[in-house]
Amino acid sequence: MPTESTEEPAPGHATVRGQRPGDRYVRIVRSADIPQSKRDYYLIAEPTVPETSLGRGILTIKRLLIGRPLQSAQAEHQRLGKIKALAVFSSDAVSSSAYATEESLRILVLAGAAAMSYVLPVGIAITILLAIVAFSYRQTVFAYPQGGGSYIVTKDNLGKMPSLLAGASLMTDYILTVAVSISSGVAAVTSAVTRLYPFRVELAVAAIAFITIANLRGIRESGTIFAIPTYAFIFGMIIMLVLGFMAWFGVGPTPHPVHYPIPPATSGLGIFLILRSFSSGCTALTGVEAISDGVPAFKKPEAKNAATTLIWMALVLGTIFLGLTFLAHHFHPVPNNNETIISQLTRTIVGRTPFYYFIQAATAGILLIAANTSFADFPRMCSFLARDKFLPHQFLFRGDRLAYSIGIGVLATAAGILVIVFKASVNALIPLYAVGVFTAFTMSQASMTYRHWKKEPPGRNRNTGIMINGTGALVTGITTIIIIATKFISGAWIVMIIIPVLITQFLAIRKHYDRVHDQLAVDPDRLRQRASSRPQEPVVVVPIDHLSQAAIRAIDYARGISTDVTVVHIADEPEDAKALRRAWNDYHFHLPLVIVESPYRELLGPLVNFIEQTHREKDNRTLTVVLPEFVPAHLYEIPLHNQTAWRLRTALWTHPGVVVTTVPYHLAR
Amino acid sequence: MPTESTEEPAPGHATVRGQRPGDRYVRIVRSADIPQSKRDYYLIAEPTVPETSLGRGILTIKRLLIGRPLQSAQAEHQRLGKIKALAVFSSDAVSSSAYATEESLRILVLAGAAAMSYVLPVGIAITILLAIVAFSYRQTVFAYPQGGGSYIVTKDNLGKMPSLLAGASLMTDYILTVAVSISSGVAAVTSAVTRLYPFRVELAVAAIAFITIANLRGIRESGTIFAIPTYAFIFGMIIMLVLGFMAWFGVGPTPHPVHYPIPPATSGLGIFLILRSFSSGCTALTGVEAISDGVPAFKKPEAKNAATTLIWMALVLGTIFLGLTFLAHHFHPVPNNNETIISQLTRTIVGRTPFYYFIQAATAGILLIAANTSFADFPRMCSFLARDKFLPHQFLFRGDRLAYSIGIGVLATAAGILVIVFKASVNALIPLYAVGVFTAFTMSQASMTYRHWKKEPPGRNRNTGIMINGTGALVTGITTIIIIATKFISGAWIVMIIIPVLITQFLAIRKHYDRVHDQLAVDPDRLRQRASSRPQEPVVVVPIDHLSQAAIRAIDYARGISTDVTVVHIADEPEDAKALRRAWNDYHFHLPLVIVESPYRELLGPLVNFIEQTHREKDNRTLTVVLPEFVPAHLYEIPLHNQTAWRLRTALWTHPGVVVTTVPYHLAR
Repeated sequence: MPTESTEEPAPGHATVRGQRPGDRYVRIVRSADIPQSKRDYYLIAEPTVPETSLGRGILTIKRLLIGRPLQSAQAEHQRLGKIKALAVFSSDAVSSSAYATEESLRILVLAGAAAMSYVLPVGIAITILLAIVAFSYRQTVFAYPQGGGSYIVTKDNLGKMPSLLAGASLMTDYILTVAVSISSGVAAVTSAVTRLYPFRVELAVAAIAFITIANLRGIRESGTIFAIPTYAFIFGMIIMLVLGFMAWFGVGPTPHPVHYPIPPATSGLGIFLILRSFSSGCTALTGVEAISDGVPAFKKPEAKNAATTLIWMALVLGTIFLGLTFLAHHFHPVPNNNETIISQLTRTIVGRTPFYYFIQAATAGILLIAANTSFADFPRMCSFLARDKFLPHQFLFRGDRLAYSIGIGVLATAAGILVIVFKASVNALIPLYAVGVFTAFTMSQASMTYRHWKKEPPGRNRNTGIMINGTGALVTGITTIIIIATKFISGAWIVMIIIPVLITQFLAIRKHYDRVHDQLAVDPDRLRQRASSRPQEPVVVVPIDHLSQAAIRAIDYARGISTDVTVVHIADEPEDAKALRRAWNDYHFHLPLVIVESPYRELLGPLVNFIEQTHREKDNRTLTVVLPEFVPAHLYEIPLHNQTAWRLRTALWTHPGVVVTTVPYHLAR
Repeated sequence: MPTESTEEPAPGHATVRGQRPGDRYVRIVRSADIPQSKRDYYLIAEPTVPETSLGRGILTIKRLLIGRPLQSAQAEHQRLGKIKALAVFSSDAVSSSAYATEESLRILVLAGAAAMSYVLPVGIAITILLAIVAFSYRQTVFAYPQGGGSYIVTKDNLGKMPSLLAGASLMTDYILTVAVSISSGVAAVTSAVTRLYPFRVELAVAAIAFITIANLRGIRESGTIFAIPTYAFIFGMIIMLVLGFMAWFGVGPTPHPVHYPIPPATSGLGIFLILRSFSSGCTALTGVEAISDGVPAFKKPEAKNAATTLIWMALVLGTIFLGLTFLAHHFHPVPNNNETIISQLTRTIVGRTPFYYFIQAATAGILLIAANTSFADFPRMCSFLARDKFLPHQFLFRGDRLAYSIGIGVLATAAGILVIVFKASVNALIPLYAVGVFTAFTMSQASMTYRHWKKEPPGRNRNTGIMINGTGALVTGITTIIIIATKFISGAWIVMIIIPVLITQFLAIRKHYDRVHDQLAVDPDRLRQRASSRPQEPVVVVPIDHLSQAAIRAIDYARGISTDVTVVHIADEPEDAKALRRAWNDYHFHLPLVIVESPYRELLGPLVNFIEQTHREKDNRTLTVVLPEFVPAHLYEIPLHNQTAWRLRTALWTHPGVVVTTVPYHLAR
């Protein structure tokens, strides 16, 4: 370690537990250089048990809700094989097939029964779009083996503003993914058990609460348990599709078509309606970008494995989506609020058999997992934005369980509000959805095109790259415009307001942090002078109620930090004040005691006034108010204490030069 | 002032603004002895304007919601004449007539149309009860000219447990007064404007919110504005009753009876049903105790004026209640959810004329004022309980506008929950009501009987007193039992659970405060020894991020309070840590700098660990953590700062011997 010559021990440096004797300070070394066996000895090696029963009470509640703390090292992903990775990363994308066909049909049916046959060409167009996007992202996987989310890739190539556009777009879409997936999952349940339909909003909110707690507990996205609903859905749908096509061609089970009345046409069939149907169906592509974000989680060779898994995922999604679209075209299910298209098709093919319930359960399951994916991605993206100072610092904090608690809380709240306002209706939420995803797709693909053009040597690879990503950018860009145009009135306008508001916020937060940074900068000369200046002791005021143990401790502390200590008593009972004065004189405290009478029993006003007055009289030298603070023995006793301390702290918070120090007094029982 | 010889000025005492020169401390004098002109000079004489724009921002919001602060002196009631006092104190009692007859009928109608004629004997019985209670309270008024609420009177005569029973009973009943009055007022509105019926819960919640804000702003209960709806109701009802009786005897307007279908009988007519009807009607008596509570607010001679006003009030209430009962007996209105009895009777007599709308508006108005009465009484009673340490201290705090904010908040929340849970239905709330009031009546009258017996000299006055209050106690006691028995299943059981729970809470809180008081007691010898001990400076730890202005200020402060200061930096970027070490050495800070490396970017864990370790190494001497705290220039910037300081404070709160001091750094922009 040759670079450490400037870090020789200085005299008087404190040691840190776990240091070798003689090592008087912690050496600065690259973390890779610390021997594995010592790596965490000055991290939280073991969580300490609180010494007081109050501390233990708080801890018990936290543990019940959140679980035992995890060591930082446990943040590392376990590496995933392709089979498991497909389950982890594809749930969001594949689950989209649960609503995409249905929402596409829902638009067409506005123009009457005949128009519904357009579901086939629309579905084929979306599948082609899926192929283009998948091949585009394959390029990203190879270019960003360290993980290439749209925000990172755009920041890297196109700079600040485009990256913030990608970031804001993704934020809105992660929120909508939760709201839409949960609503669609609830629809799968209420299709099978219709008497639950009136409770759909409650069910959806409960599901969000469940996922939130699971994520605050730091659920691992790589858990095997996630693979079960995903593969159950994939295999269930494939069996259903095979049975469906057999029934169609008369070699399988006899189909029993479900007959819902087709509502009368309320709209003519025109190019606008078909494009709107296409826009709604494009929600099938949400989640396709997930793998490009998570390349480092793959087993080696990461990029190659991730690229292969991406193509598998596109194949699975394309097959299920297109298969459902063909069956819907043939069996004519009619979209309605009581039963999903998948439920209708499954009933048509297999009736209300156990297999039907299996399909509904698997659909709800994969949608729950898909919503959970956003609970990993949204807080992570917020943490990137916070690292770049576009969001408040607290999005960077990880709790005991290494979860980004604030990001999880924001996502859960926003998705919860959406679900409640839109009454857990997928149909009502769809116009807001996909705008963000396709904006992010476009920014990401445009970034990749720019990257090939700028950073690669001329040649066949560069040209292929530009062609693939250029096509991706162009097609997703056009799709974004189509989505905005056709869904603007029915809801996309909300997103078109939220995204610029978010970007403005990002910029304002960044500007604030930059401004604070400038204000805090120290000029070296002043610093040198300051470092050798004589320290000045503060003026100390100790408000006391009566001569209790807690008051004595506060006075002791005050005497320890300054020789200029004034004790003040706000008297509401003159008799008590007289007794205090007598005791003060009897016990020979060598400190001034000021008694301020408050005939109307008011405490805070006279006290603040006295403190302000003293501060002025002492030429605005730093003034410290030392207050006893009670730490009760039990959690539920907290509301019984310290209101005065808290109120005084709040009242004095905006007074420059006044420091409020609370000296804890721990109650034993 | 001969008793003040022990309060001679001691050397070094600080002065307080407004003191005469030479007076080195504030003299303890009885507040009555301070000359009027100087009375408030060391109270908040004028509210100071905060020096920072953040402080001004916080203030602006508070002022908008709550208004300008009031001086304590303004807490004094203006003295009331009898006319105004009747308006102020009778709204609660008189407004009860808006629902008492109706609720009495509602029970009788369960036994069919014929049973409804029993409303007359039931009404007469309740009026006799009213007379007994009014005469009983007349005694209380003379015995307690300083104000004799049930809690105070019972505490004074029967002791702790009975007074807590009275207190808990009154608390539940104040809450129910708000819920019932508001619900009944909303019913008056929706009877007149039926299309508002679906919004009754929203209207009720809005009304509670309105009263809450008005009371937080410190509305004066003595305002003339309160007299208007009360007298409007009283005169409106008297005119209506006169017209009604004229119509009855064929000398006035032709009545147009309203015909609602009478629901089929679901119950036989028995003594239990009649007693249940009586119990429901007894809600007419709620609020009768108000005057005995507020004697000091009357002009001199207070007791005599209050007693006269009490009899007037009973006459007004009795007349309106009995009049309505007679009319209801004659014109046969049928209780139902869509229209109140008063609305039906008024329509019968005068049709949908402007006078009808006037009556509905006046009814809603007086009920709003009645609810407002609880917003003055409930917080005041909580403050009595808090003064006796049966409730947390914060029920004693008065805000800038001299309102007991916590009590107001608790009442509003509890009443709001009741209104929402019971869907603003008077009918549903009634079984919970009156249990508390009659329990408090009984305790109060029993106390008065005891008082006559124990404290008065034998003679005619004593015997009359025992007879009147003894009758009152007996009759209200029997009524309490009837109310509990007949309404137990339909809702009184809820109150029967809440009251004991409240009493248990009161006792537990008192026990806790007593225990704390014992723990805090200082033994005089130790105190004497302590007073002359040598102060010990604390061990100080200053965590810094980088060498910013804020960090420098924190280090300066730390050097001012101790010579044992250690600066610590938790390094997540080894390069930054190296730069910090170099700067530290360059600038010759004569303080140890410890760098703790945290390879996984965790901050709080290593810091807490380091602090605990240092505390142990320094033999558990008091350790002070000095942290910079940012005070931003604008309110909305608060969430962008200080998370670490707050988190660290929370994490260290339960560590005995560790003091966290935050040194504010005021950002200029």
